[in-house]
Amino acid sequence: MAGQVLQVEKHIFQKFDEELSELIDKLLEMGGLVEKQVNDAVRSLVESDTELASAVSVNEEQVDDMDVEIDRSCVRLIAMRQPTASDLRLILGVSKSVQDLERIGDEAHKIARLTLSLAEEPHVHANVGRSKINHLADYVIDKLRQILDAYGRLDADLTVKIARTDKVIDEEYQAALREMVTYMMEDPRSISSALDVMWALRSLERVGDHVENLAEHLIYTVKGVDVRHSTLKELKRQVKKT
Amino acid sequence: MAGQVLQVEKHIFQKFDEELSELIDKLLEMGGLVEKQVNDAVRSLVESDTELASAVSVNEEQVDDMDVEIDRSCVRLIAMRQPTASDLRLILGVSKSVQDLERIGDEAHKIARLTLSLAEEPHVHANVGRSKINHLADYVIDKLRQILDAYGRLDADLTVKIARTDKVIDEEYQAALREMVTYMMEDPRSISSALDVMWALRSLERVGDHVENLAEHLIYTVKGVDVRHSTLKELKRQVKKT
Repeated sequence: MAGQVLQVEKHIFQKFDEELSELIDKLLEMGGLVEKQVNDAVRSLVESDTELASAVSVNEEQVDDMDVEIDRSCVRLIAMRQPTASDLRLILGVSKSVQDLERIGDEAHKIARLTLSLAEEPHVHANVGRSKINHLADYVIDKLRQILDAYGRLDADLTVKIARTDKVIDEEYQAALREMVTYMMEDPRSISSALDVMWALRSLERVGDHVENLAEHLIYTVKGVDVRHSTLKELKRQVKKT
Repeated sequence: MAGQVLQVEKHIFQKFDEELSELIDKLLEMGGLVEKQVNDAVRSLVESDTELASAVSVNEEQVDDMDVEIDRSCVRLIAMRQPTASDLRLILGVSKSVQDLERIGDEAHKIARLTLSLAEEPHVHANVGRSKINHLADYVIDKLRQILDAYGRLDADLTVKIARTDKVIDEEYQAALREMVTYMMEDPRSISSALDVMWALRSLERVGDHVENLAEHLIYTVKGVDVRHSTLKELKRQVKKT
């Protein structure tokens, strides 16, 4: 009898573990889709590819669906399995990460919409903007990819290395903004298109912010340390302590 | 004996109810602080009051502390009380709302930083920007206040009335942006300060987005309906159904 109970308990635990790893898989799938959305959106803008921009708009719906689906799974798992400690942390961490992924998707959508609105007006200095956008996008997408990778391995130490170790994105962003302002001042006819480039840069900077949030959620998920308002130094210390 | 057990259970339920209403109280307290932060930040910018801007920066820490504290309470309540159905929804709704409040605080902080950086450069057309910022801020802060009010009463129907019923914020924002672009084109010397005004407008628009998220979390909390990706029409229908 006791043996049977143990068997049932073991079965429940196994099932729960499977559900948790399915949850992470779904999160990574959503992450992959969102990464593609940012990539496509940037490419559509840089190459003035309105067809690709429209595809990004259409896929936005899929991102939203995944958002709702994963969130429901989180609620269902908490309600049914009543997890504590690390399992609960994992589920809540996933729930928060989904929100950031969804907002990265939003920014991709905004960039795609810029492509469509730019298609209707003549470009000035488009080339300058393109290289700036490409440059910043490379950094941001690369960081997103690294964090998703770390998520797949639930590796918080790797995350600390990636997160906040450099201010590159911020510096690139500020430099690009300054350059666009210079262009505007030198040739006021470029103001409108330069502004569009600036909005795209701003969106990419936002993506970078959300990637940082993802890193923080992952550290919380794995280590149980809330590092959202810590400096890099505090963050390293806190993660070491655990 | 059975009576004693019932007493204990009743006591636990009462205690849990108290904890839940404390949680809402803390959320509303954070909401009040964040509302004040936006108000102060806008006032600091419009009146070039660097002292007030510095105060906003200092209070930002308090917002962050409340964020972490409420989030911890949510995790603790889930782990200890293992709530299901509506109680779980309430806690998860609060946890998400806290994230949006924290980001509204971030935007207030950004506006305050603009005040400080503007204090170091001469203003051009500052008056035009001021009235635009004031105008948009009035709408946004008013909507935030209404949603917090609805939260205090856990009134989803009221929320539906407030949320998405008008496109006023978006229209005001777009009109203000267009006006600033016109100023930039007419007088390229105004580009730099006009951009600062535009960043402030953008921050306020973001606050409006987060206020909309808050409304959606509240509807989810009270009605259990996820309305995040619904149109206004769908939203009204869904809330009616429940």
